[in-house]
Amino acid sequence: MSNTPSQLNVCVIGGDDAAPEVVHPTVEILRQLAPTINFVQAISGREAQAEIGETFPSVTRDAIDSADCTLFGASGGPSRPILWYLRWGKETYVNIRPVRWRPGYLSPMRYPERIDYVIVRDNLEGMYPPREGDLAELSTLASSGSWWQAPPVHEKGAYSVRVSTDRQMSRVAVAACELAVQRQQAGYPGRVTLGAKYSIQPRTDGRFREIVRETVKQYSGLSYQEFLVDDLARRMVAVPETLDVVVLGNEHGDILADAASGTIGGLGLSPSACYGENYAYFEPVHGSAPDLAGKNVINPTAMLLSGAMFLAHYGFTEQAQMLESAVAETYREGTTLTVDQGGNASTTDFVAAVRRQLGL
Amino acid sequence: MSNTPSQLNVCVIGGDDAAPEVVHPTVEILRQLAPTINFVQAISGREAQAEIGETFPSVTRDAIDSADCTLFGASGGPSRPILWYLRWGKETYVNIRPVRWRPGYLSPMRYPERIDYVIVRDNLEGMYPPREGDLAELSTLASSGSWWQAPPVHEKGAYSVRVSTDRQMSRVAVAACELAVQRQQAGYPGRVTLGAKYSIQPRTDGRFREIVRETVKQYSGLSYQEFLVDDLARRMVAVPETLDVVVLGNEHGDILADAASGTIGGLGLSPSACYGENYAYFEPVHGSAPDLAGKNVINPTAMLLSGAMFLAHYGFTEQAQMLESAVAETYREGTTLTVDQGGNASTTDFVAAVRRQLGL
Repeated sequence: MSNTPSQLNVCVIGGDDAAPEVVHPTVEILRQLAPTINFVQAISGREAQAEIGETFPSVTRDAIDSADCTLFGASGGPSRPILWYLRWGKETYVNIRPVRWRPGYLSPMRYPERIDYVIVRDNLEGMYPPREGDLAELSTLASSGSWWQAPPVHEKGAYSVRVSTDRQMSRVAVAACELAVQRQQAGYPGRVTLGAKYSIQPRTDGRFREIVRETVKQYSGLSYQEFLVDDLARRMVAVPETLDVVVLGNEHGDILADAASGTIGGLGLSPSACYGENYAYFEPVHGSAPDLAGKNVINPTAMLLSGAMFLAHYGFTEQAQMLESAVAETYREGTTLTVDQGGNASTTDFVAAVRRQLGL
Repeated sequence: MSNTPSQLNVCVIGGDDAAPEVVHPTVEILRQLAPTINFVQAISGREAQAEIGETFPSVTRDAIDSADCTLFGASGGPSRPILWYLRWGKETYVNIRPVRWRPGYLSPMRYPERIDYVIVRDNLEGMYPPREGDLAELSTLASSGSWWQAPPVHEKGAYSVRVSTDRQMSRVAVAACELAVQRQQAGYPGRVTLGAKYSIQPRTDGRFREIVRETVKQYSGLSYQEFLVDDLARRMVAVPETLDVVVLGNEHGDILADAASGTIGGLGLSPSACYGENYAYFEPVHGSAPDLAGKNVINPTAMLLSGAMFLAHYGFTEQAQMLESAVAETYREGTTLTVDQGGNASTTDFVAAVRRQLGL
């Protein structure tokens, strides 16, 4: 998934509310660290609505399509169609969310130094996008007669469908294994941990377990463990030091990754990347933080670290490490932290501190 | 839900593996605290298989049916049909899981004293029991044509259906509000917090949100807040002090309640109760702990506190408080703790310490 084209073209979309306040300074740093990369801004959300009359104009779609990847701020509603296009339109099938505490992060845990793992999440299937309808429809399903309990088709209510294909589960499993191999080379244990509800969802989560087990067996250096997803949620809190690469379904990953962000000190610290065969996008996992918009207080760490993931993915290894180290050093010093981390620095102050670390 | 019959009859089912080791000493204490209650043991799991030839014999079903409620150890597989009967057979629609740290609990959190809330979970619907089938079947659903993305009906894979009825969501919402009122009388803030994925599951979780909102409005003294379930998972870790009564769907509650147990120090500390219109059962939320079976090391706290919930539910308020205080005092002293809590006491030692506190 990490071929670097000779000329890397990157679409930059600020997103909604406070998100552009972290996207723009990050891109400035990336431009300086890697001057050969071509960044192209695209319009979105309320700004696009005002200028062009739609939140996702064709000019923005074209900008996404003609780039190799997108750096995306966050959607607070108006930019959601863009996010959906980046995910399902570009088939970016796997979401990577590192969960790593660094000295200076304001963690609610007693031993946060034990937290250093990565969540690999299905980005396309499960319960998102929504597939819902009236309960009465369920009587048309061929399997419904064989269920242990008939669906309550005569009651007022709704259903939602969760889907999983072998194809998608397999490539998510492969992505987890490849990442575990890569981390193992850097000194991590090379352990893949599955969380799923295989006990009570045999056809879907049980099948996912089977596929992940079989996939891990193809990698002789890796070890494997599995837990019911509820138990894994507890382990993230209780024994995070036992985790290395955690593989999860879409909605399980959605929930557990946010809980995991909580353990290191919040969403403001959590980067992410989404990869497909032919596309990738990078976004901080915090929302668009409408309450912070225009105040210059949002924490840019998640976006900066998403930028580092972007650099690493396209082979700018040294620059990625420089950026990561600069952020880490800013936290270690602890004199220029944003409000969510117990400091009183502005977004601009924090970015300036990181830039000083980088000698920019 | 808490009418006390003039003669309270209680079915006791030890369950699988290590579970009977906590059930039996708990029942002994309950008998002594409330001698008017009639406890009847029923056989289950491997023991029933050996003696009668089935894991859930009719004699056990009769014992459950002729009692007002059941004290259940835990299912490790063989007793699962019993658990399903207690839940869906007896329509115990709501699962109550207190999440409260007490001094002496070995918590991984920096400020565990901030944790004191209760999870109210749908116990009947959502994705459990399983309703799964082949993806190809989904084309028969009337709504499938209107979905944003068609289901991948030509691929190898499976679906799982999540159901929610207005009726069940309403009574779960009422249970949460009633509990919030009850807690408010004891000095808690009277705040109901909903966690659901209403942003992306409008027909099911969106409807749940609507119902909970409307229900809370019927209780003038209560306040209300709502979060996407992923954000709520983070809040349980980051700001548990903002939570009072948390209401969740079945699988969300399953996952978040275990994460919450992690924050106080583990499943060995977490009691639960399940209530219906005409039945109730009480069980510790830890599993049957097959690795601990026969070793006299399993922590009996969760079962003892489930026993206290049982006493309180049937109006034995004073006895419930005595039992809770005895457990709390044992932790405060900290000299007789089980291995999971950093001590080296056996199950028997811990029970003996609690009995001493009770003067038994």
